[in-house]
Amino acid sequence: MFREIKNGKLYFDGCDMTEIAKEYGTPLYVFSENDIVSRFEDLKRDFSDKYGNCRVAYAAKAFCTKGMLKIVEKCGASVDVVSGGEIAVAKAAGFPADRIEFNGNNKLPAEIDMAVEYGIKRFILDGVKELPLIEEACKKNDTKVNVVVRITPGVPASTHDHIITGKLDSKFGIPMEDDVLYPVIKAVIDSPYTEFTGLHMHIGSQLFTNEEYIKSLEVMLDCATEIKKRYDVAVRELNMGGGFGVTYIDEERKPYSFFLDPLMERIISWAEELKIERPVVAVEPGRSMIAEAGITLYTVGQIKNIKNVRKYVSVDGGMGDNIRVALYDAEYTGVVANKAEEPCTEKVTICGKCCESGDLIARDIMVPASIEAGDILVIFSTGAYGYAMASNYNNNPVPGAVLLKDGKAAWLIKPQTYEQIMENQVIPEWI
Amino acid sequence: MFREIKNGKLYFDGCDMTEIAKEYGTPLYVFSENDIVSRFEDLKRDFSDKYGNCRVAYAAKAFCTKGMLKIVEKCGASVDVVSGGEIAVAKAAGFPADRIEFNGNNKLPAEIDMAVEYGIKRFILDGVKELPLIEEACKKNDTKVNVVVRITPGVPASTHDHIITGKLDSKFGIPMEDDVLYPVIKAVIDSPYTEFTGLHMHIGSQLFTNEEYIKSLEVMLDCATEIKKRYDVAVRELNMGGGFGVTYIDEERKPYSFFLDPLMERIISWAEELKIERPVVAVEPGRSMIAEAGITLYTVGQIKNIKNVRKYVSVDGGMGDNIRVALYDAEYTGVVANKAEEPCTEKVTICGKCCESGDLIARDIMVPASIEAGDILVIFSTGAYGYAMASNYNNNPVPGAVLLKDGKAAWLIKPQTYEQIMENQVIPEWI
Repeated sequence: MFREIKNGKLYFDGCDMTEIAKEYGTPLYVFSENDIVSRFEDLKRDFSDKYGNCRVAYAAKAFCTKGMLKIVEKCGASVDVVSGGEIAVAKAAGFPADRIEFNGNNKLPAEIDMAVEYGIKRFILDGVKELPLIEEACKKNDTKVNVVVRITPGVPASTHDHIITGKLDSKFGIPMEDDVLYPVIKAVIDSPYTEFTGLHMHIGSQLFTNEEYIKSLEVMLDCATEIKKRYDVAVRELNMGGGFGVTYIDEERKPYSFFLDPLMERIISWAEELKIERPVVAVEPGRSMIAEAGITLYTVGQIKNIKNVRKYVSVDGGMGDNIRVALYDAEYTGVVANKAEEPCTEKVTICGKCCESGDLIARDIMVPASIEAGDILVIFSTGAYGYAMASNYNNNPVPGAVLLKDGKAAWLIKPQTYEQIMENQVIPEWI
Repeated sequence: MFREIKNGKLYFDGCDMTEIAKEYGTPLYVFSENDIVSRFEDLKRDFSDKYGNCRVAYAAKAFCTKGMLKIVEKCGASVDVVSGGEIAVAKAAGFPADRIEFNGNNKLPAEIDMAVEYGIKRFILDGVKELPLIEEACKKNDTKVNVVVRITPGVPASTHDHIITGKLDSKFGIPMEDDVLYPVIKAVIDSPYTEFTGLHMHIGSQLFTNEEYIKSLEVMLDCATEIKKRYDVAVRELNMGGGFGVTYIDEERKPYSFFLDPLMERIISWAEELKIERPVVAVEPGRSMIAEAGITLYTVGQIKNIKNVRKYVSVDGGMGDNIRVALYDAEYTGVVANKAEEPCTEKVTICGKCCESGDLIARDIMVPASIEAGDILVIFSTGAYGYAMASNYNNNPVPGAVLLKDGKAAWLIKPQTYEQIMENQVIPEWI
């Protein structure tokens, strides 16, 4: 946590949030580089360095910009991309192709081409008819790529329905029926364009228990054992996906070791039993690297007090810059940056400026009773899936983002202009 | 409805959707100008022409682009904007300022300035502290504007919780407590910068019953009577908002007269009782003008059949271009454009390419059993709040939109490029 309160004001990574709001304007996303880097260091210490022969691939979908990928590169991690757009950002940031892995349930032919051309060598196969597309792109580029097969372990995770991905009824992964999964794996093994490398799973997001991981791993290990038996091919890589829970309100964040130690122990013992080399173990954390490293600054505007019902405090942003409340009933908390030491005695609901009742930023949070127009409200833990899911709903521009480090600040993303919102709009001549 | 099936293919406003997909690519939003114009004609016939002294203001938030506002202008309607961004589009389209009205629960000072500078003369007041901001902008520009006061009638509408807006616990409207509402109205009446013009309500969206309108109107008329009594000021305008339901699947769309005839009759009799001139009656339809006029074209990709569970058909778009399924559990239907006459014998779930289980386009829809990669899937009724809420989630570009009219087609919005997604991103020099 790089947040602190000094002289009644909120500081983040050494910067005074009221000053940042003044200089850069609001609404504004703000990211702490030290916070991001510390997460990568945690994972290095508790996972890659501890066990060796491991890989951390940042799941770019949580927050994918050129600057962010530069930080990821500096931290020595790989990156997990899910689209041509994310590959384009990785290219623009000069992210090394051999540290990129390509996920997604419906990779388009043009995206696969783009990936192979850039030199991406690791594909997470996620459809029974994806292999021919990969082969075609490899043939065209006279190359060969590693293929990791994503399975659906069929273990439901305890999280929001939208972000459960490992259960049986999921668009992700190859179904584990004998006559579906194994022919796919056999085809990958036999293809001159692909190297069968291993198995992948991703069971869900924002998890605080490890049972689902452990149960799903068993399914995966059974599958790996079966592959060895059927084809005498060793699974050289096991990808556990991500899903490690973060703190939005008061959830107690579990250390990475809580999730990964039992998995590593089981994988080590499994490899010993089978007398094979322990596979590379990969993880794909997204949210857990960036959620708490990002906060959002808003300026308070209209306040509506409905007697005996609720007090609404409107801010200058809304569901356009953070749709997670409307979409997942997500909960957030925050602080009035310029009144950070005042006692929070009033319960209010923070809403945005969009023309929609669901446009809420935080329900029932406690703020100082003196909250008023012009105050700077900071909402915590908006770094993941905030900017990533931003829209121009109501034609509001997407806010900019500032990167902080030890008291320094610089633009990471400049705010969108009205002109940019309209730049692709055309008036057909006949109108 | 400007949809028809000819030679086994789907046509929209005279154009073959398989040809449009080939020429413009997918995913693609497609709009029928004739469909849009026909809705404005319906409202003209059943409302403005029938009763006279009425105003139709298109709620731009449903779909706000320069081309769309040009069509609205040609149809003789006004436009209801909710942000500086929408005002910027109106300006760019040359939309006459005197036909713009400005709504919103938290209009920013800069937006109010922008509106007044452009010559917008009608503000829907939506906060007890909004008046001073309007006065300041008027003072600066040496002008005076009309103010319509939005009230919260306190009548819950039968629709999705996110889009109920007229109930008591709402961020919208001035609460109707005697010591809150009337001082605001008095201040508007007394201000040298504002002309108190009337009252506004908006009770919700996607409504198929008229009871809520009728009940809310009674609340509004009581308030208007009270204003006359207290201040001897006539309410010269009553704005009923929008909310008229449209067909997504098989909902029977009600004619505008179903909603508006009982309201008009009641307003007429009320004015007669009070012996005052009947106020101007305004409506603000958004969704009902544009929802069915827009469709989305996708190309089918990976298909995943989970035996005895579900068949997922992936397309090349997703929650980035239509978040309404994930956000509101919205339902859609569609047709395979190139197999439009084949019997639909297979139940499938259409999902997008985003890395999220909630990324669905249509649950359990019937399609031809022959559905396969490369087919063009058309989803109906995506014209409202599709493009308007589009995001770059997963860094997928926002699709373009094509306008159709009598077999002609032209770009209305060009597709976003990867370069545009990144254009505001900066890499701070210290990284």
